[in-house]
Amino acid sequence: MTTLSLPRLEALICEALVASNVSPANSTSVARALTAAEADGQKGHGLSRVPSYSAQARSGKVDGHAKPDARQGRPGGIVVDARHGFSYPAIDIANDMLPPLARANGIAAAAITRSHHFGVAAHPCERLAAHGLVALAFANTPSAMSPWGGRRPLFGTNPIAFAAPCRGRPPVVVDLALSEVARGRIMTAAQQKKPIPLGWALDTNGQPTTDAEAALKGTLLPSGGSKGAALALMVEVLAAALTGSNFAFEATSFFEAEGAPPSVGQLLLVIDPGAFAGNTSLPDRVAQLAHAIEQDAGARVPGKRRFNLRAQAEAQGVDIDAALIADVQGIAAGR
Amino acid sequence: MTTLSLPRLEALICEALVASNVSPANSTSVARALTAAEADGQKGHGLSRVPSYSAQARSGKVDGHAKPDARQGRPGGIVVDARHGFSYPAIDIANDMLPPLARANGIAAAAITRSHHFGVAAHPCERLAAHGLVALAFANTPSAMSPWGGRRPLFGTNPIAFAAPCRGRPPVVVDLALSEVARGRIMTAAQQKKPIPLGWALDTNGQPTTDAEAALKGTLLPSGGSKGAALALMVEVLAAALTGSNFAFEATSFFEAEGAPPSVGQLLLVIDPGAFAGNTSLPDRVAQLAHAIEQDAGARVPGKRRFNLRAQAEAQGVDIDAALIADVQGIAAGR
Repeated sequence: MTTLSLPRLEALICEALVASNVSPANSTSVARALTAAEADGQKGHGLSRVPSYSAQARSGKVDGHAKPDARQGRPGGIVVDARHGFSYPAIDIANDMLPPLARANGIAAAAITRSHHFGVAAHPCERLAAHGLVALAFANTPSAMSPWGGRRPLFGTNPIAFAAPCRGRPPVVVDLALSEVARGRIMTAAQQKKPIPLGWALDTNGQPTTDAEAALKGTLLPSGGSKGAALALMVEVLAAALTGSNFAFEATSFFEAEGAPPSVGQLLLVIDPGAFAGNTSLPDRVAQLAHAIEQDAGARVPGKRRFNLRAQAEAQGVDIDAALIADVQGIAAGR
Repeated sequence: MTTLSLPRLEALICEALVASNVSPANSTSVARALTAAEADGQKGHGLSRVPSYSAQARSGKVDGHAKPDARQGRPGGIVVDARHGFSYPAIDIANDMLPPLARANGIAAAAITRSHHFGVAAHPCERLAAHGLVALAFANTPSAMSPWGGRRPLFGTNPIAFAAPCRGRPPVVVDLALSEVARGRIMTAAQQKKPIPLGWALDTNGQPTTDAEAALKGTLLPSGGSKGAALALMVEVLAAALTGSNFAFEATSFFEAEGAPPSVGQLLLVIDPGAFAGNTSLPDRVAQLAHAIEQDAGARVPGKRRFNLRAQAEAQGVDIDAALIADVQGIAAGR
């Protein structure tokens, strides 16, 4: 393992992307997002993505020079066409446009279409919570999970994220994939040639498996059984049908360089609590809820772990696999 | 068991409520909602609620004569004060006001505050989907479930519901409580003196239990472990903090006649797909998704079962426990 400071990590990612036919502006946006993922300990959405992102930019599966096109249709609704580029530049635009719309209308939404891997779903929500707003995010991903009782992987792992401001402390953050575990954890196990626990996935024959490679070819199991599968369906409708994007079962891989763009979708919902919470202060009330949770021995406020890791990463940098760094340095050097 | 037609059932409920100090208009609204629950096979939200609803209206814990007060603050946001009455008259108003607001703004929301038991969370969503809109509902309930790792029941079972129009067929409907099972199923087991499976609940000592009475005093287990608990926290923020209502741990029972009003909250979000889905038709796309699910042997489209039950109930009536009918008839007769 090698320790890299966050600025050095971000610069390295940016260089690798610029060397892979990604515009400087888009490279900066992507590098910032992947670095933020590493800082939060979300390695599945961090530096490990650079080799596949770069390969997709070189093959043209992702348009590294895409300029997202944002249009406001109704007073509370914007559509951001990511134009088969990376998601992050489109998310950045949505994040900039949404706060004033949410304040004016009470609630606003951004539909991101023709998009790619969403990264850490909590991050755009957190940025909106920093404006005093409550935010929800829904994203679909390439197919990984069956409907309940079925065997075909029709749904993605389909993250749901949420953030709300909390007086005197970081926002309360929820961020979860609807599979029992994130696909990234099985990817990591496969890369490390390690087995996975039973209950994470089925193989292509619909049988429980501990083989990470077999699990990646098969289907992930939903969290909470039929309930996780039902929520995954809901996310397909919100993130794909509503945004005019591909369903999971129509989308190509976020990892392979060949094929059509995945063209998945994301939906960001933003609410101004001032329009709804009457005379009470939502950040005060959320702080009361967080306090009540902390009074319960053994319980913790969701999102707290990531803020602790982030503070540590900002102070001390992050530990990264040396082989991965060498790989990304090679991409940056055009090898 | 006795078979009652839906109109007879609705009339019986209405009579019992009117005899229990509930206004005719509110009685009609409540009776319609409870009857619709029975038609869908959701007995925990149906006739079985009448004795406790009536007792609360008689004691004044629920104001049977409350007229909900709806105010539009921002262009996309309304606040409906249920004024410590039943939730259904407030939901009816929100359902009437939301469609034009969602069309004008692209998205709209109704915060229902000082409310009571939400009933079948899917029903308001379905009514909005009948307008071609996509709807989400979040409701908190009195405390029943611990934060992950904790023992104090800080969260409610906190239903999430969703409906979206589907071309040529009923809407796709998701409706789930975030506990492993709905509290109503444990109530039913307790009434019938039956045991419950392990994995549904913990007793007051934090130990797994098969005793329904012990489970009702203890805490329900969340669906999907930490993920269900995190979503329950999200619902507390959306349904209670955002609406200016009580958190689960501040709310009194939906069943007992004594005490302050529960004063919980509900949030309805409504999206006009025409503002976001570009050139694609959301109902067409949802129908494609439903078709893909049905091609997967063993899988089914969520919500389908309830529509089958409803059609059967409309044609043949519903089977109801004769003792419960006698009980409600007694209430209607003022005994």
